[in-house]
Parts: sequence; C-alpha cells; structure tokens
Amino acid sequence: MFESAEIGHKIDKSLYKVEEPVLREALLDIQYELKERGEFPVIILINGVDGAGKGETVNLLNEWMDPRLISTHAFGKTSDEERERPRMWRYWRALPAKGRIGILFGSWYTDPIVGRVTGALKSSELDHQIDEIVRFEKMLAHEGVVLLKFWFHLSKEKQEKRLKQLEKDPKTRWRVTDQDWDNFKSYDKFSRISEHTLRETSTGEAPWVVVEGEDANYRSLTVGKLLLREIRKHLDLGAIKNDVSEVAPLLPPIDNLQLLDTLQLDQEYSKKDYEQELEKLQGRLNLLTRHPDFNKHSIIAVFEGNDAAGKGGSVRRITAAIDARQYSIIPVAAPTEEERVQPYLWRFWRHVPRKGRISIFDRSWYGRVLVERVEGFCREADWMRAYSEINDFEEQLVENGAIIVKFWLAISQDEQLKRFKLREEIGFKRFKITEEDWRNRDKWGAYVHAVSDMVERTSTDIAPWTLVEANNKYYARIKIMKTLCEAIEKVLK
Amino acid sequence: MFESAEIGHKIDKSLYKVEEPVLREALLDIQYELKERGEFPVIILINGVDGAGKGETVNLLNEWMDPRLISTHAFGKTSDEERERPRMWRYWRALPAKGRIGILFGSWYTDPIVGRVTGALKSSELDHQIDEIVRFEKMLAHEGVVLLKFWFHLSKEKQEKRLKQLEKDPKTRWRVTDQDWDNFKSYDKFSRISEHTLRETSTGEAPWVVVEGEDANYRSLTVGKLLLREIRKHLDLGAIKNDVSEVAPLLPPIDNLQLLDTLQLDQEYSKKDYEQELEKLQGRLNLLTRHPDFNKHSIIAVFEGNDAAGKGGSVRRITAAIDARQYSIIPVAAPTEEERVQPYLWRFWRHVPRKGRISIFDRSWYGRVLVERVEGFCREADWMRAYSEINDFEEQLVENGAIIVKFWLAISQDEQLKRFKLREEIGFKRFKITEEDWRNRDKWGAYVHAVSDMVERTSTDIAPWTLVEANNKYYARIKIMKTLCEAIEKVLK
Repeated sequence: MFESAEIGHKIDKSLYKVEEPVLREALLDIQYELKERGEFPVIILINGVDGAGKGETVNLLNEWMDPRLISTHAFGKTSDEERERPRMWRYWRALPAKGRIGILFGSWYTDPIVGRVTGALKSSELDHQIDEIVRFEKMLAHEGVVLLKFWFHLSKEKQEKRLKQLEKDPKTRWRVTDQDWDNFKSYDKFSRISEHTLRETSTGEAPWVVVEGEDANYRSLTVGKLLLREIRKHLDLGAIKNDVSEVAPLLPPIDNLQLLDTLQLDQEYSKKDYEQELEKLQGRLNLLTRHPDFNKHSIIAVFEGNDAAGKGGSVRRITAAIDARQYSIIPVAAPTEEERVQPYLWRFWRHVPRKGRISIFDRSWYGRVLVERVEGFCREADWMRAYSEINDFEEQLVENGAIIVKFWLAISQDEQLKRFKLREEIGFKRFKITEEDWRNRDKWGAYVHAVSDMVERTSTDIAPWTLVEANNKYYARIKIMKTLCEAIEKVLK
Repeated sequence: MFESAEIGHKIDKSLYKVEEPVLREALLDIQYELKERGEFPVIILINGVDGAGKGETVNLLNEWMDPRLISTHAFGKTSDEERERPRMWRYWRALPAKGRIGILFGSWYTDPIVGRVTGALKSSELDHQIDEIVRFEKMLAHEGVVLLKFWFHLSKEKQEKRLKQLEKDPKTRWRVTDQDWDNFKSYDKFSRISEHTLRETSTGEAPWVVVEGEDANYRSLTVGKLLLREIRKHLDLGAIKNDVSEVAPLLPPIDNLQLLDTLQLDQEYSKKDYEQELEKLQGRLNLLTRHPDFNKHSIIAVFEGNDAAGKGGSVRRITAAIDARQYSIIPVAAPTEEERVQPYLWRFWRHVPRKGRISIFDRSWYGRVLVERVEGFCREADWMRAYSEINDFEEQLVENGAIIVKFWLAISQDEQLKRFKLREEIGFKRFKITEEDWRNRDKWGAYVHAVSDMVERTSTDIAPWTLVEANNKYYARIKIMKTLCEAIEKVLK
C-alpha cells in the first residue's frame, strides 16, 4: 500500500505559489464555520516514517490556520498518572471539543506498531490492539467526530538520503538522533508491520491516507486540500449522519416474559442476621482492600436500579468498610457543558481510577441504554451501538487490572409506591420525591424491557451484572457485599 | 496552643448515644440544603499528630453524611504531572465544587511542616510558604469557600501509649509503621514547628481548631458540631459576605493623565525592515526553545489589548517559530459550568503548563480587572482583591521556573475605527464585528483607567507588563518578539 507513495509526486513551485494562498484562506474560513456551528470536532492523526515531514506538516497547519482553535498533542513517554490507567486513557484526555481541531502527533497507532517492531508485543497482541482501535474509531465516527489519518511515507533510499541531508546541515543536525538511525535499521520490519496495521485499520469510517513525504509542496497541498474537503463534506451533511437504517428494533420476547420478571423480589432476611453478617462482610472487605496485591488492581462498582431501590444505602454499607482515602463516589447526573462537547463515554473515562483505588458509580454509563433509551433522549441508533461500546470500555478497564461489579437493584411496583409515600411523609429534604419520580413509574414496562436488554447484552464474563432482589433491603445489602468480596477474592486469590 | 488539647476531654458513652443520632440527622439535612443551594463549597482540612484519630474522623464523616456529596483526597507522593507544576497545583485540582464538601487529608500544611522538621526547608522558607498559605486561604474565604481546619492533637505520652496499643492488637498492628516511630522521635520538634505554623495561619478567615484526639466520642462530636454550625452560619449569611466596606475606590489621577496616554502609539517601521528582523527573531526564539536548559522552565505569555489591536497576528508570529508540539494556546472566553463552581483562578490553574512547555493565553486572568470591572460583572471588592491574588499566582508560577511575559497591545480610537470598518468591508467570517465590539468602544475611557490601574498594580519585577504601541502592527510584533526572546535569555543566560 506504500507503492503509490514512492512514485515521486511533486508540485512545482509556481503552481504551489498559486494554490497555497487560496487554500489557506479557505481553511481559515472553514475553521471559523466549524467553530461557529460547533457540531463536531476534527481529529487529525499524524503518523509515518521519520524524516517524511510529519513535524513540518503539523507546524504548517498551525501556521496556515488559526492556532487558537487547534490543539496539538505529542505523545511521548507516559506519565505515571497515565500508566495506571488503560492504554487509551491518554488519548481520551486529548480529544478536542466540538468545533475544534485536534492534531495528534503520534497517536494510538504508535505504541502498537513500535511495540511489535521491537518485539515487545506478540503478533496476536498487535491484532488484539488493532481490533480495539477499529472499534474505537468506529465509535468516534458514530459520535460525529471527523477523523483524518495521515501516514507520511518515504522509501528506504529516500529516508537514508533525508537523514544524511539533515545531518550535514549544522542548523538541522540536532534533529537526527541515534534513535533515528536505529529505527532506520529496522526500516523493512517497520514497513511490514505498519502496512499490516494500516490495512487492518483502513475502514470505511476512517480510511488511511498515505502521503509521499519527499516533496514538501506536494505533501502540504495534499493534506490541506483533504482536510478542507472532509470538513466541508461533514458541514454540508449536517451534524451527525443519521444511520437509523442500520438498526433492527429490539422487540420484547413474544411471550412477554422478561428476565426481570423471573426474580423473586421478596426475600427473607432478619435484621439480626443482617447485622451479624454485615459486620463479618465489612471486615472481610476491609482486609481485601488492604491486601498487598490490591494496588495492582482497582475496583469499579456500578449501581443502577429502580428509584428508591436502596442504591444509596447499599453504597454506604460498602464505604463504611473502606478507608475514605481509597474510594471516590461518582454520582452521575446530567452531563456538564464540557462533557456535552465530547463523545458519550468521555465523562466516564475522566473518572477511571488509578491502581489501588475504588470508584463507585451511582448511576453510570448505562444511562444511555436505560433513561436515555426510555425517554428518547438519544436516537435508537445511538443506544443500540452503546451496548458494544460499553463492552469495549469495560474490557479495556479489566485488561488494565480493574475489577468490575455491576448491580441492578430491583424492587416491585408496590414496594416502590410504599417507599415513595413513606419518604413524602418523613419529608426529609434529602428524600424529595419529584414529579419525575412519579413519571418514571408510568414507564415501568419500558424500563423492564430496557433493563432486560441491557443485562442480556452487557453481562459479560469479565464484567457480569448482578441482579439484586431488593424489596428486603437487608437481603439486598448482604448480597451486594458478598458479591463484591467474592469478585475481589477471585482476582487476588 | 496545644495545652488545652491535653486536659483529658471526654464525652461519656451515654451522652454520646443521645447526641450522635441527632447530630447525624442534622448533618445529613444540611448537606442536602448545601447541595440544593449550591452557593459555596466546604473544605475540611485534617491534620495533626499520628494516632490522634485523623483517619477515623474522616471515615466517620463519610459514614455520618452522604458520601456521594463528599470527595475525600489524601495527598501522598506527588505524581510527575504534579511535580512539574507549582506546589499548590495539586490542591487546586482537588477543590470541591459549590454545594459539595471536600475533605483534604493531609493538606497544603503537611509538606511545609514535615519539610522543616526534616530540615529540607529553612526557617525562612517555611515562613515564606506560610505567607503564601495565608494569602491563599484569604482568597478562598473571599470566594465564599467555607474552610475548616482541624488539628488533631495528642500529648507525647498519649501518642506513645496509642502507638503501643495499636501494635499490640494483631488487627491494628499494620497501621503502625517504622516511619511512625521515627516521627515519634521528632515529636518535640514536630510540635514546636506545628505550633509556630498554626499560630501564623490561624487567621480571622480561617482559624485552626485544635481537637484533643484521645477520646473518640469527644473528638467526633467536636468536629461534627463545628461543621454543622459553620455550614449553618454561612447558609444563613447568604452566598458570599459582602465586604464592599473594605474597598477604597480607585480614582483616576487628579490631572486625568493616565499611563496609557503617555504612549506614542504611532511608530515607524517599514515592511522590509519588519520582514528581515522578524526572520532573525524567529530563528532566535526557535533556538531558545531548544536550549538544553529550557526543560527546567516553562513560558507563560499573556496577551491582552484593545479589540482589533492585533493579538491574534502577534501570537501567530510567535507560534510560527516554535514546534507545535511545544505550545498550547488558551483562548479565554466565558467560563464553563465546571469553572463557574470554582474560585476565579481555578480555570487558569488547570492550564498551567508542564516544564519545557509554552502556554499562550489569548486574554487571561486579567479579565477580572478589565472587562469584569468595567462591565460590572463582579463586585468592586472582587476585582480589587484580584490584583494581589494575581500577583500571588504569578509568583508561584515564577518560583516553579515559569518565565512570564505579559503584553498590553494598545491602539488609538481612530486606528480601531479604521480596522473595524476594514473588517466589516472584507466581511470574512472570522472577523465578525459584533455589537459588543462597538459597545466596548463607548467605554474607552473606563478601559484606559482600568488598564492603567492594572499595570500599576500587577507589573512586578518577576512578571512585568510590556505596553506595546500597536498602531503599526510591524512595530508591535517586533517589540513583542524581542521582549519574549530577552525574557527567556535573561533566565537561560
């Protein structure tokens, strides 16, 4: 796939002089239109061979356009805060907001390719990471992100010539390091692995563009024109392509028996048994969080459930057993302004815990397939694709050492009514029953359907759902504590 | 000041059993009121002697209240991302939003005190850090933050007893480390230095509360009741205390001659000279940013100026000389939702660059004493105190190795009118002249006054303002580039 970038593309100076100012003007204009409309971000990936003009192109784009609306990120050595999170965390941190352009110099492709070249990654591991990338980029495309992937290429001979040239000039000598020559020795291997990676990741949503790097005029105009064309195209298409056609509706089972209906919501559990058992479980959990191997892991606990099902009370029984320095509770409500200009999962990625820490989500990324689905806050296509995006997300967390537990607290409609009325009577400020709570009750059936689909599609071996029969809060809390302890023990052995 | 915390305070069990549930209820209620009103955050600092019940108290507060509305931060080893920023950066990161409670376990006091005990800090350095803290806490108070500072104390004999007790019980033995016994050996020194620090930082806005740590009932009720009382008091007072009384109005000089009036805005500079000189300066700047010592520093460049004075164009002449991987441009507009629930400077702290990097602010924290002052977006008391808060902020940056340059680009009213009209004619999308631009012109005099005050009060030796006569953009750009190069050279030598 690199052959067509070794044929000596060239734009002569006089043509460049005519075209460059026109392109520049157009890019500036479209940059402002992009910002004004604020509908989607543009991400430009810059990868390729050393000496093929990557740095020059990045600088040129910043010079041509308004650099105030561009963020450029180079990814060097990971920081310790990055190393304790999944591989993709540092890229999520760097995503540009809607209306902005982000240039990623070196990207999520660099480590997999270099890792394979140096032998740090096995071939199967590379392919696994490639799969992950393909799904990630597909998600970006669905979120409306315009992703442009440029690969700057030089033939082996041309690269050698270029490095020697740079070394000869005292003004540019500093740019050629020993590392560059070391890399050059692996040119063939690098080329082979890159080609494999590019082929596997050149998808309909995000194709690679290989740019011959030798002639500066050629490569600059190529990148600039393509950038202009793609932004124009997406502005004309309107915010997000409507891909509803892909969606097959999820129908309830024909006998209308849902997973949730099979639960025995009323369970016996006496207060006395509860108190005894709880104390034991809290001691057990406390010891586990102080286990010497615990700092190789993290815990991510997700709480979802009917309104008034007892999420808060359950969370407090867990935190009472853990040192407050170790956990964070993330109550999930409507996204903030900064979160709304990012892909859906961004606001959860920012709360991914470091190793040795525990994050408890009071409601979570599952809002997409629950309230947003039921209330119609997002399109069917969006919540449909969320199932696999969520599975990908959780897989990355687990691969990084996270222990994920997910609880759905289920109560019956009668029990909920009882609790609502009780809360209204007590009238504590903290237990305000809102209009919305009553409205949600009217959609009981829709929620049953949504929860059942959610469990079916996202209860995975690595991150299973635990359905909690919660009419009796003692029973529910014990089941939750026990599940949590067992999940940790399974990993720490 | 620790004597009164060595007299054997004690609450007996029966009284505690009566008071505890009442206090708990009240704390929970007020926590929801705090959240509902969302007017200010509460910060609780937990410091003191090992074994005096700090950890227990933090856990208890989380148990008593709704932990979903509390964030608890323990400050251990700094991460590399933290080490490359000023000392206070990690605490700014941890500030709770309005309506929330943040518990800081170990705080901005820990490092200064421990540093002095181990001898890493000289006595004068400790006092310098104490001054910094006093000003920081004063700022928090002015921003409406309720700050509670608890010091948990144990006498030397009691601490020894406590550590031995913990060691005897196999269930708590893990909590006593060699470090604890080492610390114990320095008890007297630690006590002396702590007392000095507490005395110097026990201000009207943020007094210390020393809590005798031996009796758990006593210390728990003391902390809980005080927390309740303080939150109640501030909720009753209303959002932010109106301290306008402190403010002496800033009057223009009696002869009405302002600093800005003394500038010769029209300057000669030919295009030819400009082009030659610019190239030289860009080369010089490029070399400086690649200087081997540059990665011990960072550059913070602030651009302020009249509308259409040429900020954008000047920024681009700088960035054209630097590798795009090295700089970030931060365009400052209205604060986002997440920024509005934090103290004013928070949104700038989050953009403080790492070492070796360059942050260019297109408008900045000076908005407080410019547009916010002139437009009345904040109270007089707020922008008046901003001068010294900004000086403190910049001092911390410089102490951390930052090179700060600040430019005010000044054009005449006539020149501005000419540029506005030209922009309207060209009609590029990116040069929209808004109603607001015209309105700002009407306030020309008020801006002249505000800018003159700003320069007078914030042009410091370590972070001086450069006034740029900008009617001729060539002259302006050269002056800016030269100032920037010289500022870096002064530091890199």
